[in-house]
Amino acid sequence: MEYEEPLFYRVGRYAAEADRDVVDMVSGNPDWDPPTGVRAGLREYADAAPADLQYPPSEGLAALREAIGEERGVDPEQVVVTNGAAEANYLGMAAALDRGAGEEVLLTDPVYPYYPGKVSMLGGTTRTVEAEADGRLDPAAVREAASDETACIVVNTPNNPTGAVYDAAAMREFVAVAEDVDAVLLSDEVYHRFDFSGRFASALGVDSPNRVVTGSFSKSFAITGFRVGYAVLPDSLRDAARTRHMLTTVSASRPAQRAVLRGLETVEDAYFERARDRLRERAATFTEALDAVGAEYTTPDGAFYVLVRIPEFPGTMANAKRLIDEAGVAGMPGETFGAARADWLRFALVTPRVETAAERLAGFFTARTDG
Amino acid sequence: MEYEEPLFYRVGRYAAEADRDVVDMVSGNPDWDPPTGVRAGLREYADAAPADLQYPPSEGLAALREAIGEERGVDPEQVVVTNGAAEANYLGMAAALDRGAGEEVLLTDPVYPYYPGKVSMLGGTTRTVEAEADGRLDPAAVREAASDETACIVVNTPNNPTGAVYDAAAMREFVAVAEDVDAVLLSDEVYHRFDFSGRFASALGVDSPNRVVTGSFSKSFAITGFRVGYAVLPDSLRDAARTRHMLTTVSASRPAQRAVLRGLETVEDAYFERARDRLRERAATFTEALDAVGAEYTTPDGAFYVLVRIPEFPGTMANAKRLIDEAGVAGMPGETFGAARADWLRFALVTPRVETAAERLAGFFTARTDG
Repeated sequence: MEYEEPLFYRVGRYAAEADRDVVDMVSGNPDWDPPTGVRAGLREYADAAPADLQYPPSEGLAALREAIGEERGVDPEQVVVTNGAAEANYLGMAAALDRGAGEEVLLTDPVYPYYPGKVSMLGGTTRTVEAEADGRLDPAAVREAASDETACIVVNTPNNPTGAVYDAAAMREFVAVAEDVDAVLLSDEVYHRFDFSGRFASALGVDSPNRVVTGSFSKSFAITGFRVGYAVLPDSLRDAARTRHMLTTVSASRPAQRAVLRGLETVEDAYFERARDRLRERAATFTEALDAVGAEYTTPDGAFYVLVRIPEFPGTMANAKRLIDEAGVAGMPGETFGAARADWLRFALVTPRVETAAERLAGFFTARTDG
Repeated sequence: MEYEEPLFYRVGRYAAEADRDVVDMVSGNPDWDPPTGVRAGLREYADAAPADLQYPPSEGLAALREAIGEERGVDPEQVVVTNGAAEANYLGMAAALDRGAGEEVLLTDPVYPYYPGKVSMLGGTTRTVEAEADGRLDPAAVREAASDETACIVVNTPNNPTGAVYDAAAMREFVAVAEDVDAVLLSDEVYHRFDFSGRFASALGVDSPNRVVTGSFSKSFAITGFRVGYAVLPDSLRDAARTRHMLTTVSASRPAQRAVLRGLETVEDAYFERARDRLRERAATFTEALDAVGAEYTTPDGAFYVLVRIPEFPGTMANAKRLIDEAGVAGMPGETFGAARADWLRFALVTPRVETAAERLAGFFTARTDG
């Protein structure tokens, strides 16, 4: 396997090394504070008895699995706590491929770029379904692409990078397609707390032996470095996922599990509302500037990214670098996410300097048009 | 993949549910305190700025990789920080198998029971080399078992469960065999701080593109729940390991990395000396009682386990349960570790109640012989 430095890192480093001030809209790292319980949980754990510093149950601390079960409305027995959604998605895809019912994984285009890497690491092949212009994923297109060869259908809602939120009817149909071709619908819902549309529908709403849901606290609690995620698995896949989890990492880190547990016990809805309000406001500020320069863009229904197409300025790596050097704004080139949005740029709203970025982009493109 | 509950858990639970007081000598969880820096590191991290709560570099915090490089005497560029030695061993085995130079992994018998599971999860096959009666691993036997089919040779020194420590000549020869058959020597050295013999020789002493060393802070810092380990990889395998690490877990948990970093910065040799003295004393107390009942045993040169063979009391699961119920001492049946020590029982010395356990075993077997 060749190591290819993820483009996120490459663009991030280019921005950091630039000879000028740059607003970083590359990373997906929240810039706000976690719920206070997270810090309190770490402090408490620093005084834990030696026995409590040792291996937790491989599937996660019982109290944390219960708290996740309550948050997501599922039986805690279905929950395996993982080293972030990264491991949860790896376990889910592996369990799907190991069923021996196909070797193909259906992904969307555009796509979160680590999915294809995971599939190929696990020995699977990839088929892509193009998302609609507005980011929606047409269930009919998924059904058409699915076949006996399909082992897994991966959807991500709210979606990175399109900002789309799939509605309940679509989610039901995705699960139905998975059932019909004997595959697993894997729904990555790490942004489930960032739904601005009110239309988010979890795949957990559809009970099925062919449905796996993954999530994490990386985004919802603003702690991407803690590496606490989870998979919600049907009975038929749970043993395979648990075995692989045990053999790959044994368990997620206990200090981080304890911090998340205390966070879940004490966080209030207002915390998530504030995060959504903040992002809504940033999206408005940012897209207003885009209007001014005649750019095409997606207003996110969820997650925290804006996809942008600027006339005569395709989202290539060269242009992303040019924006860093000449406008002082760093975004991700669209090619990172597949072929369908190769002309676009993705800007993450997780910076307090969205207004500065908006002004800089408006200035840069206005000057360009005027020149 | 069928989920088989690890025997450790099964025996541990049987002991916990027993209708009497039981001394737990099953788990490998240290019962002593971590270095004070570990707790201090967690406390400090609880106050970190939001940006410091986000993804660390995938390969580990730069300062932690430097500290590990200093501890182990290697270039930090060779270090990948992992989710415990569990993930480090998974990455090392996968990198070896992915080279396309064989599909067979050489393991010892007795063996740490998670190794065979990892091999089969990664699609490899297993060949075993029996350890000598005293636990040593004869390099000639390894050479004889190695072939063109060999992708990886896994050794564990100091050894769990035999307590053997492989000397420098043996380590050099293991690496030479790996080079000669175009395989990777993977040396798991999680117990490197628990050498009572003064003869421990790390595979890091042999520079080779065919040599990977894994380690962790689980045992040395008494924090098995933190999940911070590492792999030291040659240039030729580093990219493959980094890619898989990124795609499997992204990174080890940052609070735990920070705690370990502060621990490494402040721990003194006296901390490890105290741990070794404690274990030496426990081993002496325990084996004295075994002498009294005419049992055969291995006095560990390293790690913290004693393998015991009791006349007319083979180390079956049934007998392990009987010891729990009738003697109040829990140990692991030898079959857990392969065929070669199926008659034996393994007792872990990580309990302050070794003396009680010794008295109980002496009483139980004396009564049995007398009866």
